[in-house]
Amino acid sequence: MINPEIPKGFKDYLPKEMIARQHLISIIQRVFERYGFLPLDTPSQEYALTLLGKGSPEMDKQIYRLRSPEGKDVGLRFDLTVPLARVVAQYPNLPKPFRRYQIGHVFRAEKPDPGRFREFIQADIDIVGSSLIASDAEIICIMYDTLKALGISRFKIRINNRKVLNSLADFVKIPEDKKIAVFRVIDKLEKQGIDAIKEELTNGRIDESGDKIAGLGLSLNKVERIIEFLSQERGNKRELISSLKAFFSDFPQALLGINELEELCGYLEAMEISEESVVIDISIARGLDYYTGTVFEAILQDAQEFGAVFAGGRYDELIKRFSGVELPGTGASLGVSRILDALVKLNILKTPTSTTQVLVTVMEEDKISQYKKIARELRLSGVNTELYLGNKGLSFQLQYANAQEIPIAIIIGSDEFLNDCVCVKDLRKQLRERSLVSGHKEWVEAGKKAQITISRKDLVETVKKML
Amino acid sequence: MINPEIPKGFKDYLPKEMIARQHLISIIQRVFERYGFLPLDTPSQEYALTLLGKGSPEMDKQIYRLRSPEGKDVGLRFDLTVPLARVVAQYPNLPKPFRRYQIGHVFRAEKPDPGRFREFIQADIDIVGSSLIASDAEIICIMYDTLKALGISRFKIRINNRKVLNSLADFVKIPEDKKIAVFRVIDKLEKQGIDAIKEELTNGRIDESGDKIAGLGLSLNKVERIIEFLSQERGNKRELISSLKAFFSDFPQALLGINELEELCGYLEAMEISEESVVIDISIARGLDYYTGTVFEAILQDAQEFGAVFAGGRYDELIKRFSGVELPGTGASLGVSRILDALVKLNILKTPTSTTQVLVTVMEEDKISQYKKIARELRLSGVNTELYLGNKGLSFQLQYANAQEIPIAIIIGSDEFLNDCVCVKDLRKQLRERSLVSGHKEWVEAGKKAQITISRKDLVETVKKML
Repeated sequence: MINPEIPKGFKDYLPKEMIARQHLISIIQRVFERYGFLPLDTPSQEYALTLLGKGSPEMDKQIYRLRSPEGKDVGLRFDLTVPLARVVAQYPNLPKPFRRYQIGHVFRAEKPDPGRFREFIQADIDIVGSSLIASDAEIICIMYDTLKALGISRFKIRINNRKVLNSLADFVKIPEDKKIAVFRVIDKLEKQGIDAIKEELTNGRIDESGDKIAGLGLSLNKVERIIEFLSQERGNKRELISSLKAFFSDFPQALLGINELEELCGYLEAMEISEESVVIDISIARGLDYYTGTVFEAILQDAQEFGAVFAGGRYDELIKRFSGVELPGTGASLGVSRILDALVKLNILKTPTSTTQVLVTVMEEDKISQYKKIARELRLSGVNTELYLGNKGLSFQLQYANAQEIPIAIIIGSDEFLNDCVCVKDLRKQLRERSLVSGHKEWVEAGKKAQITISRKDLVETVKKML
Repeated sequence: MINPEIPKGFKDYLPKEMIARQHLISIIQRVFERYGFLPLDTPSQEYALTLLGKGSPEMDKQIYRLRSPEGKDVGLRFDLTVPLARVVAQYPNLPKPFRRYQIGHVFRAEKPDPGRFREFIQADIDIVGSSLIASDAEIICIMYDTLKALGISRFKIRINNRKVLNSLADFVKIPEDKKIAVFRVIDKLEKQGIDAIKEELTNGRIDESGDKIAGLGLSLNKVERIIEFLSQERGNKRELISSLKAFFSDFPQALLGINELEELCGYLEAMEISEESVVIDISIARGLDYYTGTVFEAILQDAQEFGAVFAGGRYDELIKRFSGVELPGTGASLGVSRILDALVKLNILKTPTSTTQVLVTVMEEDKISQYKKIARELRLSGVNTELYLGNKGLSFQLQYANAQEIPIAIIIGSDEFLNDCVCVKDLRKQLRERSLVSGHKEWVEAGKKAQITISRKDLVETVKKML
């Protein structure tokens, strides 16, 4: 006998959760299409070379590797951005700017945590072929509208620009090969606080779980300047931009990134995106090495433990890996599985247990053809109908309908067959009525009040009115 | 530089094809929900043991194998039925009968053919926990309604019963371990003809490509009785059932399967499913070893080269593998990727090139905030709107909209900005008007006739009326 179980880090979506997931995805898809994005799908498997790119050892470990039947080295995709870069290089005739969305499974051989799976769904939007900051603004606007459409009122989108961070690194004279590592440390500011950052930039520290985090060995002088940079007053976007300009007043090349941030803020104002929902956070870097300009991430203020649920940035160098052609890109990725968990936790997503509207119960098994006819009539007229095909009695069938939150049950026994009529029971009404009474007799009475007996020919019309 | 390409046997879905696929899936999903089926999703990866079951060497070769980070032996799912069996064994509290649908990617490390991929989408419906033939009839009815809903008028659903084939095998005295092999040969009748079947049952044959197919070594006497069985008049279902009863008149245990077929036909009649669309074909076996009763498959008469696009059967022993509990099941699997190709070939599926309704063109790059405001206004009022963010001029932008079949373009130049108005161009109308004229002047004139200049405050209303 085989033990029924799934590999560690994976998850089954049983119907109730799956209905919620489908509902969530349909909202996301609607917003994406509203912004003129078109769908794309790519294979789950890509050549390992495609996935690895320059190859960071960290990502390498996370990729599920396998062999094609021809013996080629392939892997399961770990995101949807790298496949997009491959697609635009492979099909040069795609119209540009290419606005695509992709909603699909990705795979990471990571240590699974609660809420962190080895297979999960991402929903990505990207604009390829536009270097305008206006495109970054579009992406941020979609993030904003998507989170609103999902019913989330309290979220923050933090924006920054890699060019500003690069200027900081140049200003402080961080060696080229240490930049990304420094950015990753700075990125932890919000989570770990300034003291931890200081330690990680210098001699390292012992984290909460007792593990040693190696330090980057920067001099105290450099670290002080970084801290000074990070200590600028946040809050109002315009004020922070002025403050950045002042900080870099001796270092004019920093203006490039600051001006991009300023232009971006102008668009956000024009689109009347609320000042509090989108903030500049100069510590934000995003981990991936391919970002080159604007970066952004959204967190839910009432479910911060889920981290950045929607994040991305501008990557003007990524596609060059494939085609050698300079094709700029910008986009963001929404963690669908993760935000689903967050919405369930926040009790925001209210979806039904079942999409079924009517249960046709079966009392006389030898007349099943008759029941089938009735079910088919309802289905052909557009009503989601289940015909009960198990081996339990009527009261079990009604309990089943209640448990599944199916609103209406059709009951036809020998009397009804004889008189060519059907009994239609409104299970929602029965539930309401019964919640108001006590005593067995009243309880039975309440059940009766929720059902009507009608001529069979009026069935479809009656059911449709009731729904 | 990395060559942008995908592994052999995989496929990218670019937007036009992806829009068609999404449309197809939404139709399928609607029919499935109409019949009271609820969605389920399972991981792409399962333990190898789960996938292999009893382990047929043929299936074993087709499974993509990989190692979990913990070193466990896992594989990519090759169908959605085995994961379903695992799910119902793993969650014993799922309501029964459990009606679920699942639409998902499956993987097979097969030799790829045109139209046969290593990753493809299946859409499955199954009823678990009902041994009633009425459940088989539900599945066939859904196959029928789904194919109709997809706009396919000419299809045939062939039905049979494994018990009838088992009776034939017992009647002719085929050894137990050769039964499935014999069924697989019989199953080729329609495709290969009676002579090829005879040869494969006896001494083997050389196929079209010159390969030797080994024979099963049955005696001529046995083969003659099988041929006699297969030679019964097809056509009318009721007549064939009588003929089957006559054939097995000395072998009463065959009645079990024949009676199931007869009961099934009764339900199909009650549901008024057309006699020609569903036929009994006593050669149909379906390859998988786990079928135990009714089997069925649908082919498209005008695209027979796509084979059985929707097929399945009853499997009353499969779930026992996991739980040891006898839980009967029946269901069918629709090859989504395959039927998409068939519908495109038959020119049945007509879907737009783009889901975008309006292109806001950009003429004055320094006023992009203004264009953004207009795009956002349209989006917030429910119009799918793209804002052009490339670096080409107006005439290129309009060509782009035409190529994408975007119906409306908004044009705002310095004049319009000055007068607070916008120019709305109906690109469909322009196409029609221009197709009627010759000469450059008339052509320009036709373009002008398709556009109107309105006050900016009337934009949303005008666009909505035009769509």
